[in-house]
Amino acid sequence: MKEYLKTSHVILTSHSNQAFQESAPVKWGAKNPKERGPVIATISTKENRNAIGSHSGSYTVYRALSIAAGSFAQDHIPDLTNTSPTVNITPKSSWHDAEKIISLDPWGASIGDVFSKELKEGFNIQPSIAITQAHLTLPEINDAVEKGRLKPDGVIVKENGDVFVTKVAIEPVWYLPGIAKRFGIAEGTLRKILFQETGGMFPELVTRPDLKILLPPIGSTTAYIFGDINNLADESKVLTCRVHDECNGSDVFGSDICTCRPYLMHGIEEAVKTAQNGGVGLIVYFRKEGRALGEVTKLLVYNARKRQKGGDSAATYFERTECVAGIQDARFQEFMPDVLHWFGIKKIDHLVSMSNMKYNAIVKSGITVIDRVSIPKELVPDDAQVEIEAKKAAGYFSDDEALTDDELDSIKGRDLS
Amino acid sequence: MKEYLKTSHVILTSHSNQAFQESAPVKWGAKNPKERGPVIATISTKENRNAIGSHSGSYTVYRALSIAAGSFAQDHIPDLTNTSPTVNITPKSSWHDAEKIISLDPWGASIGDVFSKELKEGFNIQPSIAITQAHLTLPEINDAVEKGRLKPDGVIVKENGDVFVTKVAIEPVWYLPGIAKRFGIAEGTLRKILFQETGGMFPELVTRPDLKILLPPIGSTTAYIFGDINNLADESKVLTCRVHDECNGSDVFGSDICTCRPYLMHGIEEAVKTAQNGGVGLIVYFRKEGRALGEVTKLLVYNARKRQKGGDSAATYFERTECVAGIQDARFQEFMPDVLHWFGIKKIDHLVSMSNMKYNAIVKSGITVIDRVSIPKELVPDDAQVEIEAKKAAGYFSDDEALTDDELDSIKGRDLS
Repeated sequence: MKEYLKTSHVILTSHSNQAFQESAPVKWGAKNPKERGPVIATISTKENRNAIGSHSGSYTVYRALSIAAGSFAQDHIPDLTNTSPTVNITPKSSWHDAEKIISLDPWGASIGDVFSKELKEGFNIQPSIAITQAHLTLPEINDAVEKGRLKPDGVIVKENGDVFVTKVAIEPVWYLPGIAKRFGIAEGTLRKILFQETGGMFPELVTRPDLKILLPPIGSTTAYIFGDINNLADESKVLTCRVHDECNGSDVFGSDICTCRPYLMHGIEEAVKTAQNGGVGLIVYFRKEGRALGEVTKLLVYNARKRQKGGDSAATYFERTECVAGIQDARFQEFMPDVLHWFGIKKIDHLVSMSNMKYNAIVKSGITVIDRVSIPKELVPDDAQVEIEAKKAAGYFSDDEALTDDELDSIKGRDLS
Repeated sequence: MKEYLKTSHVILTSHSNQAFQESAPVKWGAKNPKERGPVIATISTKENRNAIGSHSGSYTVYRALSIAAGSFAQDHIPDLTNTSPTVNITPKSSWHDAEKIISLDPWGASIGDVFSKELKEGFNIQPSIAITQAHLTLPEINDAVEKGRLKPDGVIVKENGDVFVTKVAIEPVWYLPGIAKRFGIAEGTLRKILFQETGGMFPELVTRPDLKILLPPIGSTTAYIFGDINNLADESKVLTCRVHDECNGSDVFGSDICTCRPYLMHGIEEAVKTAQNGGVGLIVYFRKEGRALGEVTKLLVYNARKRQKGGDSAATYFERTECVAGIQDARFQEFMPDVLHWFGIKKIDHLVSMSNMKYNAIVKSGITVIDRVSIPKELVPDDAQVEIEAKKAAGYFSDDEALTDDELDSIKGRDLS
């Protein structure tokens, strides 16, 4: 590789009394974006940084490796020509409410407009939100068109069964005092836990209490909007919404042990139908694989479920995860509604989800939910009966009644042989 | 939350002269797993740690938040009963070659066997690899069965069109001296870059040169095996293999701007066919969204491509990514072959990939590739012609000839209006 240009003197961590004069102040929740200030998490000019962590979440590790391999200009400043959103989201009152939105930067998509002066002055500000559009070819939607459940309209559903959509990718930008408040703990405790329990990631969490923003190395979130994006904030329009947590094994590979892809596709079909009828549809995809425990843990739990005495059973569904992982679920639906508030959503007519954690988080955040749509019975794969009955018995929303304990015992999954 | 139990005195970073007596030594590439030693990256007993970072990749951040929310026992020791692999992979010579495998722990699936003594002594060792089995329901495979391209055999392809598969989830476990060697740079330089260019993640990268292993906060890798897993190492068996880099927009949502899902499904169909004919099929899924630049960058690039003068064009396909991201591709196929070597693969008959980066990395690592399978023309979506022709012109493998410059100019994508 070319010589690594950065100083050979490595500063392990900065301290508050070493805070740079050049770093731009951020006033989270300020109404005027100028007063709020840009989030600067790029590495090129350390003096300008006002956040901990860096852009691109996990992929910051790959970016570092690109530099190690010599294939990445260390001083690259992104050329953002023509990258701005394909549709504009008008600012919403939630954008200047320091408590409504704490896990994304409401101005992250519009830095080219609101921080044009700072960009011209050479500050390396990067968008943390990108908005584009796409045509989706989905076998399940094509099937719905073939069977007549959906009809092409030439705008949302094309003649060939493809679907037109606006898509939004959103990086995590965490305002730490807001995160701590939502969890009901002290900011200092949150910072210490985030530092220590990740194996010592980012000492600035502890040494720089003046830096209030963290861009954590996790996956981004993607929103798919069917119909007009600005209708999301219009309470007179019917809104169908699914908030979906990633499950690669089902979403991509169609594993029949859970309902993830079938339920997601049902959500898309319902969202499209609502948009065709003059409303608007929204699917939000969160990168929380295996209840945010990761795929290795998920597969270990599958084995423990299938091999336990009596076999895989709805009665012991949650227990196995807790034995292996120490927790049933690590997903924190507490931040999930932020993206809904960013769109200005006040009311969801049809929430395509059975999860009480999601429902409660949405309602608690001030959004009205009119009704909930459970997965149609015919879409539940054979081996996923265990999951769905266990969830219903645990109080997840369903149109059907939950089973009794004896009935739960009788719901068995496939064994491993 | 319950009181956070860990000491109120935070150690920002440890130094080599503070190395704990209790930490187990690791001798990467040692033949005997006892001599190699267990990788201990858990947080519960810091004194035992012999790695930087922690398990579960990105999800370590969610684990820390679980503790902040008070829902996770801080002293939880995983109960690994019944979690061991559903099939055993016999150790391969590559497992004790310190240079062949540098980005995963070859003993990561079998800790229960090879480190049973240490586990009994209370060391919190966790599997970094999990192996289970699944039934896949895939619309494209069902279609192949309906159309007669695949025939149910009751074992690999069930009567209902479902496919039986063995699946393996693999966490990244990086041996830093090996990574540095593969990149041809000094280990110290690699460590400094990994620390500085991620915004100061893990000071131990710099202060603890004695710790040679990093578990980075990135996504895990998943391998899907059709047929007998131990046939992967048998050169007399035909092997069809696709190494696939994640593309959520296509893999899950079917966006027609690229060929990712159609090519993946074609790979699965070919892999299944090979297994049915007595060979073995392998799909490896890597979490390298958007060429490992992340989805926000990917969407910014889409907009820049569609809006540039002359519109989206095969002739300028790679250029736009470089302007926005500073690099055309951040994927580093250099580590990718590690998983192939872990399975003991010496030869791939049919490599379902057109990428030269992937092909070169595989061949350079010592694996013979007999032939390459390009994506069938009828599977390339309309708007993905730009991508596929640009790649062919850039030297990607194809059965067809690459286009001339004038022809490339004429391959246009859909515009944004």
